[in-house]
Amino acid sequence: MHIALIGCGRIGRVHAESIALHPKAELVRVCDAVEAAAREVAERFGGTPGSDVDAVLGDPNVDAVVIASPTPTHVDLLTRAVTAGKAVMCEKPIDLDLKQVDDCRAAIGSSASRVMVGFNRRFDPSFRAVRERVAAGEVGRLEQLIIVSRDPAPSPAEYIATSGGLFRDMTIHDFDMARFFLSEVVEVSAMGSNLVADYIAELGDIDGAVVTLRGADGTLCHITNSRRCTFGYDQRLEAFGSLGMLSVDNLRPDGVRAYGVQGTEGASTYLDFFLDRYTPAYRAELDHFIEAIGNGTAPEPGFDDGRAALVLADAAEESLRTGRVVKLDPAAAEGQR
Amino acid sequence: MHIALIGCGRIGRVHAESIALHPKAELVRVCDAVEAAAREVAERFGGTPGSDVDAVLGDPNVDAVVIASPTPTHVDLLTRAVTAGKAVMCEKPIDLDLKQVDDCRAAIGSSASRVMVGFNRRFDPSFRAVRERVAAGEVGRLEQLIIVSRDPAPSPAEYIATSGGLFRDMTIHDFDMARFFLSEVVEVSAMGSNLVADYIAELGDIDGAVVTLRGADGTLCHITNSRRCTFGYDQRLEAFGSLGMLSVDNLRPDGVRAYGVQGTEGASTYLDFFLDRYTPAYRAELDHFIEAIGNGTAPEPGFDDGRAALVLADAAEESLRTGRVVKLDPAAAEGQR
Amino acid sequence: MHIALIGCGRIGRVHAESIALHPKAELVRVCDAVEAAAREVAERFGGTPGSDVDAVLGDPNVDAVVIASPTPTHVDLLTRAVTAGKAVMCEKPIDLDLKQVDDCRAAIGSSASRVMVGFNRRFDPSFRAVRERVAAGEVGRLEQLIIVSRDPAPSPAEYIATSGGLFRDMTIHDFDMARFFLSEVVEVSAMGSNLVADYIAELGDIDGAVVTLRGADGTLCHITNSRRCTFGYDQRLEAFGSLGMLSVDNLRPDGVRAYGVQGTEGASTYLDFFLDRYTPAYRAELDHFIEAIGNGTAPEPGFDDGRAALVLADAAEESLRTGRVVKLDPAAAEGQR
Amino acid sequence: MHIALIGCGRIGRVHAESIALHPKAELVRVCDAVEAAAREVAERFGGTPGSDVDAVLGDPNVDAVVIASPTPTHVDLLTRAVTAGKAVMCEKPIDLDLKQVDDCRAAIGSSASRVMVGFNRRFDPSFRAVRERVAAGEVGRLEQLIIVSRDPAPSPAEYIATSGGLFRDMTIHDFDMARFFLSEVVEVSAMGSNLVADYIAELGDIDGAVVTLRGADGTLCHITNSRRCTFGYDQRLEAFGSLGMLSVDNLRPDGVRAYGVQGTEGASTYLDFFLDRYTPAYRAELDHFIEAIGNGTAPEPGFDDGRAALVLADAAEESLRTGRVVKLDPAAAEGQR
Repeated sequence: MHIALIGCGRIGRVHAESIALHPKAELVRVCDAVEAAAREVAERFGGTPGSDVDAVLGDPNVDAVVIASPTPTHVDLLTRAVTAGKAVMCEKPIDLDLKQVDDCRAAIGSSASRVMVGFNRRFDPSFRAVRERVAAGEVGRLEQLIIVSRDPAPSPAEYIATSGGLFRDMTIHDFDMARFFLSEVVEVSAMGSNLVADYIAELGDIDGAVVTLRGADGTLCHITNSRRCTFGYDQRLEAFGSLGMLSVDNLRPDGVRAYGVQGTEGASTYLDFFLDRYTPAYRAELDHFIEAIGNGTAPEPGFDDGRAALVLADAAEESLRTGRVVKLDPAAAEGQR
Repeated sequence: MHIALIGCGRIGRVHAESIALHPKAELVRVCDAVEAAAREVAERFGGTPGSDVDAVLGDPNVDAVVIASPTPTHVDLLTRAVTAGKAVMCEKPIDLDLKQVDDCRAAIGSSASRVMVGFNRRFDPSFRAVRERVAAGEVGRLEQLIIVSRDPAPSPAEYIATSGGLFRDMTIHDFDMARFFLSEVVEVSAMGSNLVADYIAELGDIDGAVVTLRGADGTLCHITNSRRCTFGYDQRLEAFGSLGMLSVDNLRPDGVRAYGVQGTEGASTYLDFFLDRYTPAYRAELDHFIEAIGNGTAPEPGFDDGRAALVLADAAEESLRTGRVVKLDPAAAEGQR
Repeated sequence: MHIALIGCGRIGRVHAESIALHPKAELVRVCDAVEAAAREVAERFGGTPGSDVDAVLGDPNVDAVVIASPTPTHVDLLTRAVTAGKAVMCEKPIDLDLKQVDDCRAAIGSSASRVMVGFNRRFDPSFRAVRERVAAGEVGRLEQLIIVSRDPAPSPAEYIATSGGLFRDMTIHDFDMARFFLSEVVEVSAMGSNLVADYIAELGDIDGAVVTLRGADGTLCHITNSRRCTFGYDQRLEAFGSLGMLSVDNLRPDGVRAYGVQGTEGASTYLDFFLDRYTPAYRAELDHFIEAIGNGTAPEPGFDDGRAALVLADAAEESLRTGRVVKLDPAAAEGQR
Repeated sequence: MHIALIGCGRIGRVHAESIALHPKAELVRVCDAVEAAAREVAERFGGTPGSDVDAVLGDPNVDAVVIASPTPTHVDLLTRAVTAGKAVMCEKPIDLDLKQVDDCRAAIGSSASRVMVGFNRRFDPSFRAVRERVAAGEVGRLEQLIIVSRDPAPSPAEYIATSGGLFRDMTIHDFDMARFFLSEVVEVSAMGSNLVADYIAELGDIDGAVVTLRGADGTLCHITNSRRCTFGYDQRLEAFGSLGMLSVDNLRPDGVRAYGVQGTEGASTYLDFFLDRYTPAYRAELDHFIEAIGNGTAPEPGFDDGRAALVLADAAEESLRTGRVVKLDPAAAEGQR
């Protein structure tokens, strides 16, 4: 598969490396608004660098496009790439505005089945193993899902200002994880807090949250978020059911523990950079995309999964504002599937 | 201190043993509606057995009364014991009806300072150590408190029928634990589920719940409950703050782990009986009562703590019914202190 | 069973409490060379205090004697008690001199089957569970046994001077544990070190050691000892076999863990007093003694187990001196059974 | 640095990948007796393939040679490569015969400082972190070092037959690890066992061992080996000292744990392939080689470290045969440094 990369920032580079290492893929074009960035990536991982999107989308040698450019460009690039007949892997979120997402969906029609959205955590070996073991019945009927997701440190004000808010920027990964386990979500309730950074409050955003979800089958889920965690990138999950529980602990960078008068069993802080924590997930995500498109099956999570997570983020926002449980109507829920 | 015990059920016996083992206390009277039960306890742990409450409360040799009889008798016995000049340790809850609790409070007036309510978990060495280390600043400003509390197996229908419901019967311990860390709670939001036992649904109760609380200072707390947990009595807590986190894991009955082709590090199931898990807590609770009454200071948790937990249970019930965050007004909150 | 206690030091008191709490036992006599010590124990746990051993052994109301006096008195007291028809539980070691032990054995003859030696660790719930699971085949054929046993801090010089040396005083517990798993030991090899305290070297003793044993069936075992461990009483074991491994971790006094910039998962130091670590073992040990004598069966570990552990200590001593593997001849090995 | 690889087996490929990924290195020649193997590696990781060693060593464009061919070829290739002026990284062991090693050492003279021996475990992030923290004084004076090293499954008979025996083939890594912490070793004592596979005994080799070492400063070390471990590749270490302990646990492939009626906290089996466990170590090892040679400093572990580990293996063999502690004389010890 000949792949073009659009967007050469932090995540773009990760995808470039994954493509370069993949036996069935080749990076043929690398595009960034800043051509120097494209050149740097191309030098390292291959492909023709450039800053002209039209050249990329018009190249018949390009089978698939990975979109890792800034969020506001996603809908436009995704629509054009699909229209040009390319398979697309688009970084999350599709857009911050549900209306835009729906318009895009209408525009691409059935080609949505060739679009994958970059919820990389579904491909983390630990989360995926738990998902599969739950599906295989190991915990019986799933009853309660607990997700803890905390960033090591808050992003700078410039980032927060255009992020769409905690729910659309950060929790959206957890909403997708909740859907990965629960499928359809029918109720959303949220509380937020401003305890981490004043500039976040000044920008009208929250920096901590607890969200409770109910699945259509009654399963309860709650998500705890914080923009700051001193001991690393806190990424845990518990799937509790009628027969038992499966949990995902944080990962340690080494196997060392310390013992002394001050205490015992002390380990290092956890991996504190999302790219370190999720490197294997990014690799596996790209692998799935290449396999699915190669086989002519729809990659997962797809466009509609990207939309569904945004619906949950909007609902959380509404619950925060109104102090009410937000019920999602069947039509909206349908979109979640 | 000469102590009388009223109520010789499971918890009554635990208190009898704690009193018998305490160097500063003596069990002088043992009372139960079923006199044989009183006799059995007296034989083992000392004291004069009987079934006549008046004889107990009229005995000038009795300094303090431990009330471990059925919930509906608590208010009456507590009021009479206080009126008779006795210090009182009363099992939780004071009553299932807030109106009754308020009337009782009015009746006993300032003598409430000689009443302790049996929220034993405050005396668990692990929870208490975390509370003290949080108070000492170890996690910085407390931001998020996560409580998981699951019973090994659902109580029988007869018990559930008169329990007052999950929030007043089971979560009430967690509400008290939340208050132990957060002090004043100003918002309550709850979702419940019926996934464990049909007879619980038929009795109009829930058997699982997720409750979110907000403290007056903005700290968020959530509580996860279930009436069934196959791997033991699941009693955990995480206190997360600006500088770090302190957690309480479950306790194992031994130090054994197993390794083989099927996996590694497998431990035994957790202690699955609340009396095993909390034996040291029950001992420490009684010790605190004896110390406090002996020193003329008010034992903690006191009557008003018992009331405050019930206020939170009522609020959770209301949130469940209305799908709204319930805000507690200052007057109600005052009662929480 | 009517039990007399001889010796009211630290361990004597533990046994007194175990007897007092046991439903089938009664402490009828308490004896110590220092009568005040006997009186204090009797006051707390029952029995007639005194300092006259003859009065104890001559009392027909005494069924069994627990010997917890200083080591040099063991052989004499044990012999007299057995001769007086009493069942005996004797603290370890029987004596520091194998010749004395053998003479004692000859003197008591078949009554040895009513003597138990206080290797309490066999009754620790974790070690015992592993022993039973190994016997049930869970790790397949046992191949390697690793024992780590370190004291929190070195005993004072006065104690060390009369202790018989590290192997006879401290490792003897581990030799018994090795025999608990391996039965017959046929080879012993030892290295010692002096790294902890100068006064121990000056007394001609070592303060650290590594001992390797081979069982008659080829199983290898090694024991690591130190007289000092800053993080608590380090008492661990691994039983490794053809199908897997069972391990015993150290026990923590609570379930708290800490997380922060300095690291994660930090727990408290381990229990650092042998009586705290092994309280349940001392209780279970006495319970076994009472059950076995009551049923007319021989308690385990018996007199010959006490002797066998001393044989291993002597062999380790010899290996240390000669730099050779010491082979135990069948006759000596027989005594081990 | 332009590097040539000689030997394209399992480990050769790992080195090829490390070289290809290294920013300062380029794989210029790939050589294997089976030319097809060389071609396959060259296709994937670069370089000119071939089967002619002379062509490799005669190429002035080659700065350094990585020797990953069968052990019997090491001494010859190493000598020729050094003579040809190349820096060399040679897989362990240099040779199975100490005489050959000494002759080789004499032949290469001071050029030994441009030879590195592939004891990859020194570069494992966990072991290295412990080594550095011990050196920084975190455990005080190092007193006892415990190494557990067990392979998942025994190698086939053909491999065992030419392996040089357990001590020279497998324990040699642990001898090097012991020297990494202890520097000079002055005493060696060993016991072996045949419990795993009959064909190993028939070949005159052992399949399990316990080895005890004493460092020149009195530190004790013991090593436990087995050719079979059902739960993965068991690679652990404990460095115990006067102030505390640092340990290296096994690494898990994911962060999943399971809880149910059968038990709690069950994790996956450990990584069971040495290349998975030590991938980062192989990368770091090559990086060190490139840095050291680039800077003109001697890489570590060097030729003399390779010799010293073999001296310890021979001593263990002698101890096994004689049942004695083998004392290493200063001259031999010198070679260890």
